Amino acid sequence: MGSFVTSLSCPRCGRALDHRELHGLCPCGSPLLVEYDLESVARAASKEALSGHPPTMWRYREFLPVEDPGRVVSLGEGLTPLVPTPVLRRRFGLPRLWVKDDGLNPTGTFKARGAACGVARARELGVADVALATAGNAGGAWACYGAAAGVRVHVALPRDAPPANLLECRLHGADVMLVDGLISEAGALIDGMAAERGWFDVSTLKEPYRIEGKKTLGLELAEQFGWTMPDAIVYPAGGGVGLIGIWRALDQLRRIGWLQGDTPRLIVTQAEGCAPLVNAFEEGREESESWPDGRTFAAGLRVPKARGDFLVLRAVRETGGTAVAVSDELIAEMMVELGRAGVAAAPEGAATLAAAVRLRERGELGPDDRIVLINTGTVYKYPDALELALGTEPPAQG
Amino acid sequence: MGSFVTSLSCPRCGRALDHRELHGLCPCGSPLLVEYDLESVARAASKEALSGHPPTMWRYREFLPVEDPGRVVSLGEGLTPLVPTPVLRRRFGLPRLWVKDDGLNPTGTFKARGAACGVARARELGVADVALATAGNAGGAWACYGAAAGVRVHVALPRDAPPANLLECRLHGADVMLVDGLISEAGALIDGMAAERGWFDVSTLKEPYRIEGKKTLGLELAEQFGWTMPDAIVYPAGGGVGLIGIWRALDQLRRIGWLQGDTPRLIVTQAEGCAPLVNAFEEGREESESWPDGRTFAAGLRVPKARGDFLVLRAVRETGGTAVAVSDELIAEMMVELGRAGVAAAPEGAATLAAAVRLRERGELGPDDRIVLINTGTVYKYPDALELALGTEPPAQG
Repeated sequence: MGSFVTSLSCPRCGRALDHRELHGLCPCGSPLLVEYDLESVARAASKEALSGHPPTMWRYREFLPVEDPGRVVSLGEGLTPLVPTPVLRRRFGLPRLWVKDDGLNPTGTFKARGAACGVARARELGVADVALATAGNAGGAWACYGAAAGVRVHVALPRDAPPANLLECRLHGADVMLVDGLISEAGALIDGMAAERGWFDVSTLKEPYRIEGKKTLGLELAEQFGWTMPDAIVYPAGGGVGLIGIWRALDQLRRIGWLQGDTPRLIVTQAEGCAPLVNAFEEGREESESWPDGRTFAAGLRVPKARGDFLVLRAVRETGGTAVAVSDELIAEMMVELGRAGVAAAPEGAATLAAAVRLRERGELGPDDRIVLINTGTVYKYPDALELALGTEPPAQG
Repeated sequence: MGSFVTSLSCPRCGRALDHRELHGLCPCGSPLLVEYDLESVARAASKEALSGHPPTMWRYREFLPVEDPGRVVSLGEGLTPLVPTPVLRRRFGLPRLWVKDDGLNPTGTFKARGAACGVARARELGVADVALATAGNAGGAWACYGAAAGVRVHVALPRDAPPANLLECRLHGADVMLVDGLISEAGALIDGMAAERGWFDVSTLKEPYRIEGKKTLGLELAEQFGWTMPDAIVYPAGGGVGLIGIWRALDQLRRIGWLQGDTPRLIVTQAEGCAPLVNAFEEGREESESWPDGRTFAAGLRVPKARGDFLVLRAVRETGGTAVAVSDELIAEMMVELGRAGVAAAPEGAATLAAAVRLRERGELGPDDRIVLINTGTVYKYPDALELALGTEPPAQG
């Protein structure tokens, strides 16, 4: 037993911290990253052994920070399908397009990966209570994994969060606080209460282990593509943790010599009504500026300023990627296009198809590119958005 | 290429039909079963080879009727998690309890298995249009797989079907007909239109291949339990196709010598407000009587008379199983209990926990029994039922 973690490192000030202790942010205010003894990982792990590992994200246990994977309460998270989409390929002239359908996770979203890893590690470190501010899906995921593992979960979410998120938090027995305001107000509430009551704050990037769970998205893509990555990965960025995770996975796999070929371009998409990362990318800035009054029906993309913005921008630039904003109208259209291809995608997931279509028009993606769209959630948690997307269209007739 | 199917057989009149032709029901009116050359299956397949197969139900391709598995449009269906539930185990004194979480399938329900197989086989047999009457989830699943594979889907469903089902049918571009009445009225409409327009009727058990997809539930349980089956499998029966599928899987695995130990008891649960199979079981009848005015909030259990009732009853009796009716109140309670254990179960799935608890009280299941509950769907398609289940309970306080 034991993990191959060596330390926690700060990507801003360079400080190293002891991973055997409970840490949230670096004292300098930056999120922390988890560092591994990759030589030992390379000795312990092998591609061949993977076929005997469980069909979940825990198949990559050597790359994960949990000390005792045997004690993890797994609900089946990860190893989601990489779906070739013949209908979309023909429709959009992108014959090498896949959807990584992370809506097939427990809790119906990719947030399950981060929560599974975060809850497991919090429990190992003796945490009894975690607390987070959330726009919705992260709250549901932590509530679910907390319930399964016996960690109490306190969630603050805006009163206008998607109803499915409030329902799932209640279902899983979380302590739910509804806030009049945005996720920023919810964050302020959790800040205060966590300090006062000794809860561990697990809001986005306020603790280091959520990224590690999301890293498995990148590990899976590598395995599913036979260790030669696709040319482009399109990711819908709210907080951007999944993209940072994929970037970390690529780096670690490359360093142990498991990857052939080029690094994929990491492409970020946001909604036109809330596009702080796209703006920062286009203006050449290293950080984003807070976006006032962000508006989009893709609730997961309503993040005015991501705590990990500087890491997302680094990942995009280092890999020769790009950032592209798409309209709510196009996102809604693409929800329907995905549906017509058999994929029940959340609005955030549909934004990636919108971005691919835009980049195809601009000539930045073409028929030779192997392109992966990350669908972050199932549409079933978004009946209102789906109704809206279908709204302009009468039922098909036979 | 090619499957190991030898024929279609009628479990009522014994007739054999050619599987290379398109057949619906047996001329005698009974559903048809698919027969295999099991000696050849045993030679072609091996337990050891499974680790190299895809993490979907198509890993069992030798046991499936599709001629060319390479041409199947897979959305990642099957190989759903077998979740140990420490919280439920402690709570109900059933230390060897698992939930097979089939809500993690595409379309959010176990119906994906049947639709994936049925659509693939229909396409191979040259079918351009399929039609079905459905209470909801089957319609969504066939609409989804039809969209992915390029088969047109016509769905008739009651106007009061769960809103999620209507939405997903529209999302996937199905031709949707809303019927004032029950699934029986929808069935009558499809009967007439299919005959008139040359559509292939794929309503429950009106074609032979849906069972084959559901069979993978049993194959997976066998693999996940290391080829020694659990002692009891609790299944929520609407139409009962999944139970028939599991029974067929057990039979085939046993005949090729892959299973050790006893056959599990197959246990059926229904809602007290619509329990035709439970009645027939208790009264020793071979078929059920149509249940007038069935009422339960578990929509998938509102089936007045299942076309495969005689097969379900055979499966239950042959395996020493039982049938138990549970109240809507208990189902709702068990939705919340499952949630508190990290499982987001549909009402139908929660009925299996209700049944296990009742059978524990009666001494028919005990702490030594290895028990599997089949959760047939995700709760996210049932926000109204969840709201109802949570209704009597205020949000937890931290």
